[in-house]
Amino acid sequence: MTHEEKLDRLAEVAVRIGVNVQTGQELIVNAPIEARDLVDRIATHAYRAGAALVIPFFADDLIQRARFREASEDSFDFAPAWLYEGVAKSIDEGAAMLTVVGTDPMLLADCDPARIGRAQRAMARAMKPVRGLISGFATNWSILSFATPGWAKSVFPGDPDPAARLWDAIFEVCRINEADPVAAWHAHVATLRARCDALNARRFAALRFSGPGTDLEVGLADGHLWAGGSATSKDGTACMPNMPTEEVFTMPHRERVNGRVRASKPLVHGGALIEDIEVRFEAGRIVEAKARRGEDVFRALIATDEGASRLGEVALVPDASPVSRSGLIFRNTLFDENAASHIALGQALALNMEGGCDAARGANESLIHVDWMIGSALMDVDGVNAGGTITPVMRGGAFVI
Amino acid sequence: MTHEEKLDRLAEVAVRIGVNVQTGQELIVNAPIEARDLVDRIATHAYRAGAALVIPFFADDLIQRARFREASEDSFDFAPAWLYEGVAKSIDEGAAMLTVVGTDPMLLADCDPARIGRAQRAMARAMKPVRGLISGFATNWSILSFATPGWAKSVFPGDPDPAARLWDAIFEVCRINEADPVAAWHAHVATLRARCDALNARRFAALRFSGPGTDLEVGLADGHLWAGGSATSKDGTACMPNMPTEEVFTMPHRERVNGRVRASKPLVHGGALIEDIEVRFEAGRIVEAKARRGEDVFRALIATDEGASRLGEVALVPDASPVSRSGLIFRNTLFDENAASHIALGQALALNMEGGCDAARGANESLIHVDWMIGSALMDVDGVNAGGTITPVMRGGAFVI
Repeated sequence: MTHEEKLDRLAEVAVRIGVNVQTGQELIVNAPIEARDLVDRIATHAYRAGAALVIPFFADDLIQRARFREASEDSFDFAPAWLYEGVAKSIDEGAAMLTVVGTDPMLLADCDPARIGRAQRAMARAMKPVRGLISGFATNWSILSFATPGWAKSVFPGDPDPAARLWDAIFEVCRINEADPVAAWHAHVATLRARCDALNARRFAALRFSGPGTDLEVGLADGHLWAGGSATSKDGTACMPNMPTEEVFTMPHRERVNGRVRASKPLVHGGALIEDIEVRFEAGRIVEAKARRGEDVFRALIATDEGASRLGEVALVPDASPVSRSGLIFRNTLFDENAASHIALGQALALNMEGGCDAARGANESLIHVDWMIGSALMDVDGVNAGGTITPVMRGGAFVI
Repeated sequence: MTHEEKLDRLAEVAVRIGVNVQTGQELIVNAPIEARDLVDRIATHAYRAGAALVIPFFADDLIQRARFREASEDSFDFAPAWLYEGVAKSIDEGAAMLTVVGTDPMLLADCDPARIGRAQRAMARAMKPVRGLISGFATNWSILSFATPGWAKSVFPGDPDPAARLWDAIFEVCRINEADPVAAWHAHVATLRARCDALNARRFAALRFSGPGTDLEVGLADGHLWAGGSATSKDGTACMPNMPTEEVFTMPHRERVNGRVRASKPLVHGGALIEDIEVRFEAGRIVEAKARRGEDVFRALIATDEGASRLGEVALVPDASPVSRSGLIFRNTLFDENAASHIALGQALALNMEGGCDAARGANESLIHVDWMIGSALMDVDGVNAGGTITPVMRGGAFVI
């Protein structure tokens, strides 16, 4: 297969399995401007699938850099709220959404962390209505990725053709090299579904993570639900929120997280790199936090609002997942969260609780939702049963349940 | 000067003279995706000028083509009304707007004219709130152009480097080759202002156009105002709506246009080429219409609504204008309208009537506003005074007033 054929397969999988656009539906596509070729192919497949209208929004990292280089101090509290209000309205009226990610993780590496934090807070506030609809699956949506030059270079520094290497990895973990990628995705979804069913049957009160630098108990929310693979929008359309996806995930109780945890991979957030995060939780809240690199950005992040220092998600990923097997650090959450078990600071997801988010049963609320990786081949996970007994869930990064 | 230096000058002129973005203002930039380099430079100059936020919307002609190739029949009545409602809201709240044009004029040449007409009607309806704010100068705005490969090729077919030739023409007519482009623009604006003052002092009842295939009387609206060059937004910011601009223009009376007129240049509309338009007006309305090429598209256009077959603008441009001197047909209204006197079907402009648009005094209303060229070196224009006497205005395409 040529690169173009693979790109076309990726577009088709994104349209048919990822967002699963329905006849007569509008499709909003968010993408970096470098991803034009993929977006054009997505548009073709979406119109073939009966989309009423494909509406692309191309983001331009260079304009973001121009802003941090040239804008006056006041600029960093602005975000286009009117645009996201419009997007929320279109989702309310039935539009689907496909987001292509590929930001250069080092884009803002040399910019003032305080400005980055302010810009992100402004953006988080502006996007709040959209985020609520997306996390509540008001419509069918999906996220996939594109190997932009900036991202590729940061994953493969010094490689003569970093984009080709990153594309190889993307096509592999997105099952594009399989004889029938669509069938391969259906089989994969069945595996994740069976894992969710097993965990849901247990009704664990908590999960305990034990590994280097980590001794953490994550109490689960009352009425928590495990999810993974495909999701179903409120009008009944199945979609694949993340491509790739290897995780099963559920909702922590916002007040029942205690202990220490050390990140197992770097976190890239808002164009900045945060390495070797170590935090301590007490009664659900981070009470100590440090990082070898990017500590300022991390501290600004958890100070976004009250819920930003509490957990909204806990996810289990086998260390033998295709993303982990690649041995790469992608510096992109969509990939790295599928290489390792992880926790997310911030907003809980409605699909992880019976009847949707309910603070009284432990659902967290925040402007942010940021995943970071804690799992590895050295991590054990136990389930704590209601009576206090223990059920092994993962040993050495592999499922044993 | 290198090409990059000229492009940077164009961006600076667009920001400082064109839209004249103010401190703390949001700036919406609409552009073809090929114009990324210019848009990045615009963003840099805009942030330097104190813009609060630059919000780019990149349009992708290839997605438009994918739609016409692949979409189901129902698609062509859709447009993203929610997006334009949002843009209207942002303008209401003070955002400025800069639009970069450069569509391949032949983009939809092989597509069904009925579908083109439906898609344009849907878009015109969706854009109505934005169009009203723009034509009423609710904010400062400007339109300039970028030599996309598709557009360049259609202007210079067979040329080994069509984009380089089109850029030469754009830089020349936009005064980028002058020692001080900003000063050259200020001088040019003064010339257009003096011409408007002279015409406003005459209070003509009508203009008579005489030339090959043309014998047309355009009655002017009661309380009409001549405008040209710079305009002033309602909050007092001077801007240059079109770059280049060579025209002075005013408002026809919607019911007082009579006679025959033949287009002097092709009209490119919605990606289709319309050549050799000939129409006859009676009491303001087109009662006969033909075109050698694209007649279907033209007929669909004037059937958009009641006002689409009446005039909203009449403009005078000397045949010796820099755009005309280039000897090129740009197949792009922004340029071709500045090479020749022209008329526009559809919506009248608020700045062309004392106190704004008023139907009782002859202001036309429509979803469309489409300019087409009627002037040439063979065109004479007379002003008809209130008492019926005649004042020569142009002879052989040159001003004599």
